[in-house]
Amino acid sequence: MHFAARGHNVVAIDNYLRRTIAKETDSEPLISTPGLPERAGLFEEKSGHKIETKIGDLSDPDVMFDIVKQSMPDAIVHYAEQPSGPYSMKAFDEARRTLQNNLDVTFNCIWAIKESNPDCHLIKLGTMGEYGTPNIDIEEGYITITHNGRKHRFLFPRAASTLYHTTKVLDTDLLSFYVRTYDLRVTDLMQGPVYGLSTPEADLDPRLCPNFHYDDIFGTVVNRFVVQAIAGVPLSVYGKGGQTRGYLNLLDTLQCIELAVNEPANRQQLRILNQFTETFSVVDLAQQVKSAAKQMDIDVTIEHQENPRKEMEDHYYNPVHTGLTKLGLKPNYLSDDVLLGMMKRVKAHKDNIDTRIINPRIRWS
Amino acid sequence: MHFAARGHNVVAIDNYLRRTIAKETDSEPLISTPGLPERAGLFEEKSGHKIETKIGDLSDPDVMFDIVKQSMPDAIVHYAEQPSGPYSMKAFDEARRTLQNNLDVTFNCIWAIKESNPDCHLIKLGTMGEYGTPNIDIEEGYITITHNGRKHRFLFPRAASTLYHTTKVLDTDLLSFYVRTYDLRVTDLMQGPVYGLSTPEADLDPRLCPNFHYDDIFGTVVNRFVVQAIAGVPLSVYGKGGQTRGYLNLLDTLQCIELAVNEPANRQQLRILNQFTETFSVVDLAQQVKSAAKQMDIDVTIEHQENPRKEMEDHYYNPVHTGLTKLGLKPNYLSDDVLLGMMKRVKAHKDNIDTRIINPRIRWS
Repeated sequence: MHFAARGHNVVAIDNYLRRTIAKETDSEPLISTPGLPERAGLFEEKSGHKIETKIGDLSDPDVMFDIVKQSMPDAIVHYAEQPSGPYSMKAFDEARRTLQNNLDVTFNCIWAIKESNPDCHLIKLGTMGEYGTPNIDIEEGYITITHNGRKHRFLFPRAASTLYHTTKVLDTDLLSFYVRTYDLRVTDLMQGPVYGLSTPEADLDPRLCPNFHYDDIFGTVVNRFVVQAIAGVPLSVYGKGGQTRGYLNLLDTLQCIELAVNEPANRQQLRILNQFTETFSVVDLAQQVKSAAKQMDIDVTIEHQENPRKEMEDHYYNPVHTGLTKLGLKPNYLSDDVLLGMMKRVKAHKDNIDTRIINPRIRWS
Repeated sequence: MHFAARGHNVVAIDNYLRRTIAKETDSEPLISTPGLPERAGLFEEKSGHKIETKIGDLSDPDVMFDIVKQSMPDAIVHYAEQPSGPYSMKAFDEARRTLQNNLDVTFNCIWAIKESNPDCHLIKLGTMGEYGTPNIDIEEGYITITHNGRKHRFLFPRAASTLYHTTKVLDTDLLSFYVRTYDLRVTDLMQGPVYGLSTPEADLDPRLCPNFHYDDIFGTVVNRFVVQAIAGVPLSVYGKGGQTRGYLNLLDTLQCIELAVNEPANRQQLRILNQFTETFSVVDLAQQVKSAAKQMDIDVTIEHQENPRKEMEDHYYNPVHTGLTKLGLKPNYLSDDVLLGMMKRVKAHKDNIDTRIINPRIRWS
C-alpha cells in the first residue's frame, strides 16, 4: 500500500504461511483481517491505487521464477520468511519448516534475479537478532579486524539466539556469497522489533489494519505489553528484563524500505543496514507502557517471570545505525502518544483478547 | 575400515549421491570400485572385521532418526555432503541439490542426536574453504576481536568461494547455534584438500581402493596433476597459481577423525579444528609433481590456463593448525615418495584416463 500510494506498480504474493501457522498454533491476531486479494480490492476502492495480488509459495522455484519473469520488477522486497523465533524452537517439524522455507525462498529469489532479471534490486529483511548481544559495539554489517599486525574487512560475526534468527544468518551468508560471485544488487536490512498499528494507508479502512499478534509465538514485546495493560493482567518480563534491542515504528519500517528502494545497492558488496531507531530494555518498555497506561487511568503491574528463552538478561548493547539516517530516515520515536494510540486501538478490540495465548507455550531455556 | 580395524563397531550408510552425480556429469573415478555392501564384505574377508552397511538417504529425517535410534552410536562421522565446489556452481538445479542435501543432512543429524542420543559426539567434516583467503592469520575457528576498547570472542568470520563451501559455512552456523542452545557435543573439522590412495586397510585388496577422481568436478588439484603427468598432458594451473591451501594425506585425515573421536568435544562450545598439515600454492604443487615425475623419467610441462573460478590468485595465507597436533597428530607430509606412489598406482590404470574430463567444464569467473 505504501508503494502503490506513491505511484509504484506493485505485485504482492503470499502463501499465507504465517496465517496457517497462526491457526495451527492457536495464535490468531487480535484483529482479524481479510485475505490479500480482498485487502487489495478494499485499498483500491479507498485510494484508487491498484495492487496486483497472487497466492503462491515462493519456496517453489517455479512460482518464484514465473513471477520474477512475468513482472520483471525493479525491486523485490522479500518478507517471505517464517518470522517467529519461538515457533522455530518448538520441535523438529517447526524447526525444519522454518529452515527450509526461509532458505529456499531466499535461494530461489537470488537465482530468479540472477537468471532472468539481473538488474533487479533485492531488499531482504534480515534481523538485528542475527548479531546477538556481543560485548563489543555492533557495526553496520561489516567490521575491519586488525590481527597480528594485518587488517581485513569481514562480515560482522553473527550469533543468533533462535533458529529463526539463525536462518537469517544463513540468508546473509548466502546473499553475501552470491553478491560477491555474480555482482547482484542486494540490500539486507537488519531490522529490530517493529511496533505500531497505524499508517496513512492502513488507516483508510479498519480492514486494512496491519497484522497485530500479541501471543507468545508471533507477538513481540511492545504488542504483548500493550495488550496485557488493556486486559488488566500484569506485564510479563522474562527474567531480569535487561534484554536490550533496537526498536522501530511501523512507519519507519516503511520509510526504510522506501529509502533502500530509491537508492539501490551497488553490485560490489551486499549492502547491510541496521534498521531501528532507538534501543530499550524490556524493563524500560514495561515502565513506559505502565506510565502511558496511567494516562488512560489504567494501573499496570509488572511481573518478572522465568525466562522461557536462552538469552542474556543483562548485557552490553551498542549497535551502530547511521546508514539509514544518512539515506534520509526521519525517526518516529516511541512516545507516550504512540503507546496511547496503540492502547486505544487495542481497547476497541478488548473482547477479542485471549489471555491464555500470551504466556510462553514454548521454552528452550 | 580404519575404525573397524581398531575394534570399533561401525555402521556405514550411503545414498551414493556422489556416485550418482559422477555418472550424471560423466566424471567417473579412475579406478572403479564396488558398492558399499560388497566393499564391506571384501574387507571382512580380508581383515576379519565386520562393517554393517545400509543404503539410505540421510536427508530424509526418518532415515536419519531410525539409524541413530537403532545403532545409538558413541560418535557419528558426518561425511554425507555433496562435496564438489564446481558442481555446486553449475546451474540452479545443482546448486539447489547441494544446498538442500548438505543443510538437511546436518540438520537431521543435529536433531537425531538431540532427541534420541544426546551424549553422542558428532564429528562433522567442514572445510578450510569456509574461511576463504583473508588478509589476516586464520585462527582455529574463533577469534577474539578488540573493538573500541571492548573484547568479544566470535566465530572466525567466513567467506567461501563456491556454493558448496558456503553450505559448510551455513552448517557451521547451524552447529554453533544448536551447540550453544542444547549443549551438544560437536567437532567441526575444517579440512583442506586430501591426497593419497593408500591406507593399510585399503591396501588389503585393489577393490578397497579409495575413491580417486581426477576430473574437474570431483578431482582436487594433486590428483589432477598426478593424472596429467601420467597421461603426458601439461599440468593445468588456473591463472597465476598463487592460490594457496592447506593439504593433508589421506592417512592424516583418518588420524584426525580418530583423534577427534577419542577425545570428544565438550558441551560448552562447538569445537573447531583446522585439519591440514602443510600449505602449498598450486604452482608449488605443480613443481613438486614435475620434479617427482622426473624420477619416473616423465618430462612434465606446466601450463597456465584462464581461471574458471572466481578466487584470488595471489594472496596472504597463514592459517593456524595446532589443535590436532595437540591431540597427537603425526603428519605424513607430501614427499616425492608419496607422489611417486600415487603416480605408480595411476600408471597401472593409465588406459582408464579420459583427458576430456580433466579440463574445466564449469566456469564462474
